[in-house]
Parts: sequence; C-alpha cells; structure tokens
Amino acid sequence: MLNQQIILASRPDGWVTPENFSLIESELPSPGPGQVLIQNLWLSLDPYMRGRISEAKSYARGVNIGERMVGETVGQVIASNAPALKVGDTVLAAAGWQLFAAMDANAVTLIHTEAVSPSAYLGVLGMPGITAWTGLIDICQPRPGETVVVDAASGAVGSVVGQLAKLNGCRVIGIAGGPEKCRYVTQELGFDVCVDHRSTHFAKELAAAVPTGIDCLFENVGGAIFETLLTHMRVGSRIALCGMVSEFNREPHAYRTLRSILINRIRVQGFIMSDKRETWPGIRENLYALVTQGKLKFKESVTEGLANAPKAFVGLLKGENFGKQLIKLT
Amino acid sequence: MLNQQIILASRPDGWVTPENFSLIESELPSPGPGQVLIQNLWLSLDPYMRGRISEAKSYARGVNIGERMVGETVGQVIASNAPALKVGDTVLAAAGWQLFAAMDANAVTLIHTEAVSPSAYLGVLGMPGITAWTGLIDICQPRPGETVVVDAASGAVGSVVGQLAKLNGCRVIGIAGGPEKCRYVTQELGFDVCVDHRSTHFAKELAAAVPTGIDCLFENVGGAIFETLLTHMRVGSRIALCGMVSEFNREPHAYRTLRSILINRIRVQGFIMSDKRETWPGIRENLYALVTQGKLKFKESVTEGLANAPKAFVGLLKGENFGKQLIKLT
Repeated sequence: MLNQQIILASRPDGWVTPENFSLIESELPSPGPGQVLIQNLWLSLDPYMRGRISEAKSYARGVNIGERMVGETVGQVIASNAPALKVGDTVLAAAGWQLFAAMDANAVTLIHTEAVSPSAYLGVLGMPGITAWTGLIDICQPRPGETVVVDAASGAVGSVVGQLAKLNGCRVIGIAGGPEKCRYVTQELGFDVCVDHRSTHFAKELAAAVPTGIDCLFENVGGAIFETLLTHMRVGSRIALCGMVSEFNREPHAYRTLRSILINRIRVQGFIMSDKRETWPGIRENLYALVTQGKLKFKESVTEGLANAPKAFVGLLKGENFGKQLIKLT
Repeated sequence: MLNQQIILASRPDGWVTPENFSLIESELPSPGPGQVLIQNLWLSLDPYMRGRISEAKSYARGVNIGERMVGETVGQVIASNAPALKVGDTVLAAAGWQLFAAMDANAVTLIHTEAVSPSAYLGVLGMPGITAWTGLIDICQPRPGETVVVDAASGAVGSVVGQLAKLNGCRVIGIAGGPEKCRYVTQELGFDVCVDHRSTHFAKELAAAVPTGIDCLFENVGGAIFETLLTHMRVGSRIALCGMVSEFNREPHAYRTLRSILINRIRVQGFIMSDKRETWPGIRENLYALVTQGKLKFKESVTEGLANAPKAFVGLLKGENFGKQLIKLT
C-alpha cells in the first residue's frame, strides 16, 4: 500500500490554479516510538492556506516548493506505538494533504464521535469554530443588544460567529455573496439580516442594515467591503481582524477610511487562533455543548478524493463553496 | 473694558488660513451665581482644533460659523460668585479664544503655580501631557527594553510620550521634521534616535532605526508616515492612534499596509483623552511629580496677543512651531 500526498509544485502568481499542486505517491510511513500511524478520513481546506503558499511574509512559516501542503485532518489510528492511543481511535491532527501520516501521539487529539460527526472537528469544533469564538467572545466581547457584523457569513467561521452572537442576544448582520448564501444565513442560521456584497446597491443596503452603526465587526474578508464597514463603526466599537482573504490574489487594497478608527475610538485587534493554544480545550468544550444541544448549526461542502483537493481549494478562494469545505479521503 | 474673542469666519477649504477667523469685541461677561469671571493669561493652540472647524464628522461637536473658537486657557479669577474660588486664584479652563470668560466654578480647575509655570498646565500638565500618558502608559503599556516610536516627536504630546517611555526603560525613536527638532529630541529630551521625515532617505533611515521592529507606536500624524510605520510593527505590538493631523488638509490617505495588523496581530486603539475624564487628576499628579523632579522637560513656543492666534494656529498645522504652541494674552 502506498501513501498519496499533495505537494506545492509552484507558487501562484495571482489566483491559485490546480496546476500549482502535484499529487505524488510515496512509501507508507512507519510510526516510530511514541507515534501512531493514522489513516486520514477527512481533510479540511481553509483560506489561511493561501497565505502559506505565498512568498509574502505571513504569520506562519510558508510551504516551500516540493513540500507537502499543510492542513488539519481527522483520521483513524491504524497502528500505535503509544499507550495513550489504540487502533480504531479517531483523532484530530495537522497531518496535511495526504492519506496516511505517522504522528507523535501527543501532537494529535482524541475526539469523541458518538454525538457528532468526525468531520465537525474540522469545522464548528475545529480551527474555524475556535477562531470564531476567540474573535467574537474573547476579542469583540459583544453585549446583548449590540449590533454585530460578520462577512463571509455563510462560511465555516462566519456562520459560527453569527450564531454565537445571536446566542449572546445581539442583533446580527451577515454579509455573503449571492442570494442562496444570504437565504441560508437568515433562514437557517437565524441572522437578523444578510447583505449580498454582489448586489449593485451593496453600500446602500449595508447602510440600511446598520442604521445605528456597528458595535462589533468580525472581519474575514478585507478590501473594499472592510473599507466600507469601517465607516459604519460606532464610538467605542471593536473589530476582530481575522482574515483579509480578498487581498491574497491581488495588490494590497488601499484603505481610505482609517480615520474612523481615530474618530470613533475603535479597538482593532489582529489575531490568529493558534497564538493561544491553551484556550482551545475550553472553547471546544463550549462549542461541543452548543452543537449537541442543537444550538449551533453547520453546513459542509464535501469533495471526494485527495486528487480533487487543489480544485476544491481554488473554489474555496473564489467563494464557490457553500459551507465548510472538506475533502473526503476514504 | 471690552472682551475680545476670535470667531470662526469661514470653513477652511484645504489648508487653514488666518482669514478663516475674525476678531470681534463684545461686552465683558458678568458671572452668574456659582460662576467666576476669569481673565485669561494663556491660550493653548492644539492640532485637534483643526477637526472642530471642519465639516467632516469628528469626535466632538464642531465650531459653527460665527461661533467662538474652543480651546484651553489658564486664567486668573477677577470676580467670584463661588465660595470655592477667590479673586487671584489661577485656574485651568476651557474658556476658548478670548480674553475674559464667565465660567461655572465647577467647570474650572484650581492649579498650583508655586513650583511650575501656569502655562505648563496647557502642555505637559494639561491636555497634551494627559494624552501622552493615556496613549503610552494606559494603551500601549510598554515594557522595559521594548522599542517605542512616536511621531511629531518634538511636539507637546510627542515630547512627553518619548520621555515617559525612556523613564519606563524603553528604547525610544522619535520622528520629527528637520534637523533642529531632531537634535532637540535626542540631545535635550534623551530619545535614543530621531528620524527626520523630511529626509529623502526617510524610509531607509527609519528601517535602520528599528532593526528589530516596533513594539509600541504612538501615532500623531497618520498618512504616509503611518503607512510606512505599520510595516515595521512586531508580532503582538500595540498602536495608540492619537491623531492623523496629516489628513486634515487633504483627501484621506490611502493605506496599503493594513495587512500588517493581521499578520502581526497588532492591537490598534483610537483614543481621545476626553473620553476618560475620571483618570485626569491621577495622571496630572504623576506628571506634576515628574516635572517638579526635573524628569520631564518641555519647550514652549509663545506668540503674543490674541490677534495673532490665527496665524500661530496655521503655523502649528504646518509644523512651524517648535514646542508647545501658546498665545500669551496679557
């Protein structure tokens, strides 16, 4: 049996294309002492990966040409040299874009899949869910009655942000691309309003949606949308700056509305959830409780087969996915 | 005896000119119950006043055409209907651009002028000093050994920021316009380095001055300088956004370096010292102790006569003053 891996073949120049990646075969890894051999079941695709394959400085070491793509996976232990884990256990790991991986047992997390699907640990209970909690609850600290805005609202992070804000008694406005995503955000997830950023009247519709201004902004997108949102911030408002995915594929946006930060005494906090790993277990426990109580819904966009990961990743960056983008590996 | 006042005659279109103001004479005000009549000795001119005479939304109500200009003054009580204050007392007041004012006794602050000059209460012990303390100590919270950068470094706020940072064991880089101001900042105030923003090699000289990046940025200026400074911020750094005076007289600057806030997980806090009046007495006490111990130096730029206030204000906005800009009224 051989392993399959996807490596970075070339750096994208502008938009990512499937040709920036190659699928290679290699020997099955063999677990050393204290390690487990994992067969990956699910691979998560996330916008942050765009930063890792770019030459520009980002917040983590990049992936070099010829190296395997990084990423979170859920897998099953198929061989164990570690007493803490046994064959058949389901684990969360950062095993990358591949079918099999030998991992240190203490670098993976045993997960409970009786009440929730394993793939949920890559979305609402994983990196996106913890990111949403960190930015909204820990950084924005919204109070009941406040107005919360989140863009990429139907995405893996945005959908959790908005639902958490509703659970905290906030008025929640989502921004999403297209009527289908907007319907999902309001009708399925319970946001109060969704503004379609593809609408020709976006600026006007946004202004109408936040007549008294924004108290908390959870920013995933950056660019012209963020520039416009800045002008609607209230005095004393907070911005959790989580992503600027719109800037990945082009020249940096030129923001002309920074004066709002001064005028409105805004607190802006850039953050990366991986800075505070010590908070993860507690946050995951909170999210698990909400999911099992049916208070936190999530949607998955599943693509089958490792070979299709590059194409799915390109679609994710273009906003073509609808729900948490996953690759089903088995 | 008549009062003299300076009113806003017209709104500036771009740069402020002396013709935007008029000097008018009026009856001497008479203090009502609980009020005092003050003869102003010193008037403070400050960059924030530019925001008050602009049509654009700012953080405080603007001055309308025909209204008296707002501003802080130090004056002497010449008549009192309030038991707490007696004739001859020296007080700090927001009496505006005029020679005499009737003020509620509880709206003015009795000051002690035995050990420091009265005018110091308009600078190092006044709004600029308290602004410096708030932004540096309360918002940036610099630790010993950290690198602190402040622009408009020789100004009323910047000079206090840098000296406080030195007292806190930081490495301090000032940015100022011209060699004379830079010499003052390093040789008189004890900053480690000063970078002249008028230098043709500004970007290179700045980069050389902060080889390991910036931990705390106290931002007074905005515009191209701020845009460049953003690219030198360290992971986990803080920005106290105090002013964007460079944007007052032109179109808003287009900032292309916002991604640094995300990449470096920067905390940016816009602030106005008047939001937290409850902190003023404690901060002023701390500053008073440092001034009387000779640990906090300050420089004043004095213009004589109320009639010259408009010209001096224009100079202030162009950076022509050197030290805290004051108008001596008697």
